[in-house]
Amino acid sequence: MKTAILIPALLLICSAAAAQGPRGGMNRVPVSSPVVNPDKTVTFNYRNDNAKEVKLSSQLAPTVDMKRDENGIWTVTVGPVRPDLYPYCFVVDGINVQDPLNPDWFPNEKFKNSLVDVRNDNQDEGPYALRDVPHGAVDYINYPSATLGLYGRALVYTPPTYYKDKDRRYPVFYLISGTTDTEEVYFKVGRMNVILDNLIAEGKAEEMIIVLPYGNPALYYSPEQRSAYKPDSFNKDFLNDLMPYVENNYRTQNAPESRAIGGFSRGGNQALALGLSNTDRFAYLCSYSSFTSMTLPGVYDNANELNSKIKLFWLGVGTDDFLYGNAKEYMDFLDSKGIRNTKVFTDDKGGHTWMNARYFLCESLPLLFKK
Amino acid sequence: MKTAILIPALLLICSAAAAQGPRGGMNRVPVSSPVVNPDKTVTFNYRNDNAKEVKLSSQLAPTVDMKRDENGIWTVTVGPVRPDLYPYCFVVDGINVQDPLNPDWFPNEKFKNSLVDVRNDNQDEGPYALRDVPHGAVDYINYPSATLGLYGRALVYTPPTYYKDKDRRYPVFYLISGTTDTEEVYFKVGRMNVILDNLIAEGKAEEMIIVLPYGNPALYYSPEQRSAYKPDSFNKDFLNDLMPYVENNYRTQNAPESRAIGGFSRGGNQALALGLSNTDRFAYLCSYSSFTSMTLPGVYDNANELNSKIKLFWLGVGTDDFLYGNAKEYMDFLDSKGIRNTKVFTDDKGGHTWMNARYFLCESLPLLFKK
Repeated sequence: MKTAILIPALLLICSAAAAQGPRGGMNRVPVSSPVVNPDKTVTFNYRNDNAKEVKLSSQLAPTVDMKRDENGIWTVTVGPVRPDLYPYCFVVDGINVQDPLNPDWFPNEKFKNSLVDVRNDNQDEGPYALRDVPHGAVDYINYPSATLGLYGRALVYTPPTYYKDKDRRYPVFYLISGTTDTEEVYFKVGRMNVILDNLIAEGKAEEMIIVLPYGNPALYYSPEQRSAYKPDSFNKDFLNDLMPYVENNYRTQNAPESRAIGGFSRGGNQALALGLSNTDRFAYLCSYSSFTSMTLPGVYDNANELNSKIKLFWLGVGTDDFLYGNAKEYMDFLDSKGIRNTKVFTDDKGGHTWMNARYFLCESLPLLFKK
Repeated sequence: MKTAILIPALLLICSAAAAQGPRGGMNRVPVSSPVVNPDKTVTFNYRNDNAKEVKLSSQLAPTVDMKRDENGIWTVTVGPVRPDLYPYCFVVDGINVQDPLNPDWFPNEKFKNSLVDVRNDNQDEGPYALRDVPHGAVDYINYPSATLGLYGRALVYTPPTYYKDKDRRYPVFYLISGTTDTEEVYFKVGRMNVILDNLIAEGKAEEMIIVLPYGNPALYYSPEQRSAYKPDSFNKDFLNDLMPYVENNYRTQNAPESRAIGGFSRGGNQALALGLSNTDRFAYLCSYSSFTSMTLPGVYDNANELNSKIKLFWLGVGTDDFLYGNAKEYMDFLDSKGIRNTKVFTDDKGGHTWMNARYFLCESLPLLFKK
């Protein structure tokens, strides 16, 4: 008879997910990665006896070679860095791999990155630190889309009072991630739920529903279906399938002053294209590090009408962003047209990064739906 | 001025997640992967001009070399295969990588796999096909854990009537994944929500809440904290922190006949250890491909008491599973003790696989909480 009650994880060396690959022996030195040191440097460790060259590619430091330590572990220490949540990966003989020792992945169509959370000294500090405050819920939904001919994917955040206050209705913020990001990214990387929970608890933001659509739903198609996806399919799905589903299934306030739309990178472009063409639906527009378009037929010429309908037109961009030039040009264009807008710039969170995507969300959420 | 309204994704070649790695030119042949062919063979395509050797490692076929086609794309076609959801990865010069063209990943602490869904000819068929039936909700929760000293992670499924029937209470099934699986796996891979939505719509299963705990919460600790994690920390967190949180925040029925506990692999071991030691709390026990323990002090000697308290003791295992011998031995042991149990074997879904984990869930869900 067996004597163990709980089987130590080491004895179960195979999981159902196991595939071939380099494996060490059972007696190897235990290793952790990443390790955030008290001085806010970060140490990365990677076990691979076959690799010839390993680099750390990340957004917390310039790309750097990793070197094998006395136990044969590839390692490097970078920083100290500003507290934030950073993507990184290892480049192993030219191939990007996620950190095998880190369960926190950056969901993405293509790019394989892990996430390291460098926290403030006070663990409760920081806009996306999980604190002991009332928490909202995050639902993963599938909504039927006649436009797409399949079930679309999205996430829906409902605020802390939603399941207590059974009659209360809430404004809605539609928030779209960027190219190659999936519908999860403003949750898993953007931490929108924790950020808003904290702002609500501090009395700085209104309770609202947040919807995270998927900016590239054609990717879930089979190759045969993809020819059915047209340039306007995203907009049509958003307006005709996603929004009605949200408004039928959640207690939403359905008026322009109760709807915001925004996004990061391509998501901001999508949000502005939809928002500026539908000012009878959305009164709050947010562009985070977005590529912006100065030609939308009939939109920019009536500044008085836009200014009367849009309560907030908020644009943020990092000065190191490769899209900074375009963003600045767009802001100047809006100013030249007399279209009221709010501009925010950063210079310490990288260029086109999710550190900026998160920061811009933190800065603009308190401005939405203010009475 | 720019003339484009929506910027084609190709022009946004950088996303915030971009890191170094092999890139083709902008004029390369478009490629999809995976491609499920009408005859249920599956073609995998991988672009990498620098690799010397690429293999497909998967659970739908034996490991096989991929070869470069006339466009330089590494490719292979396997099958035909039985419709199911299969993990796979590419082994590129000895390194496991997920399919860069497939956004569906298998969440895991270590192993890097993608998922390919080989469907029935009728897309609506199959236990985990997303159908036009009422759907439940899947919440990602963080619960405060005094045992762990941090917020634990779990997922909670609530059935279709939950948000309509505001006074109704529901039984709860606690369902635990295996070694290296995260708290998401019975959702993202196990498809528990879709499976149960379909069974409920067919009248075959009761409406219930499903909770997916994380079997290895110490992994989220910093290395300094890990020494605080004791062998009984999982059980203590489960009983003292997770269950009270669920029962305080969801409309649960709180009696043994309204609680089930089960799991896959190590998760089944954890479920049986908890369930058999707490028959005053759980009346339904499910072991899916689990390593099982025949020594729990005082548990197995009173068959009459176990048989009177346990309404279902369900065990499933594949005959090709490396744990099959242990499972069979355990079943014989239960029989020898006169402890009533239900046994299910498979021989066509691989050994220790998530195809079995899903199948066993489908087979046992209809048996839970029957009046």
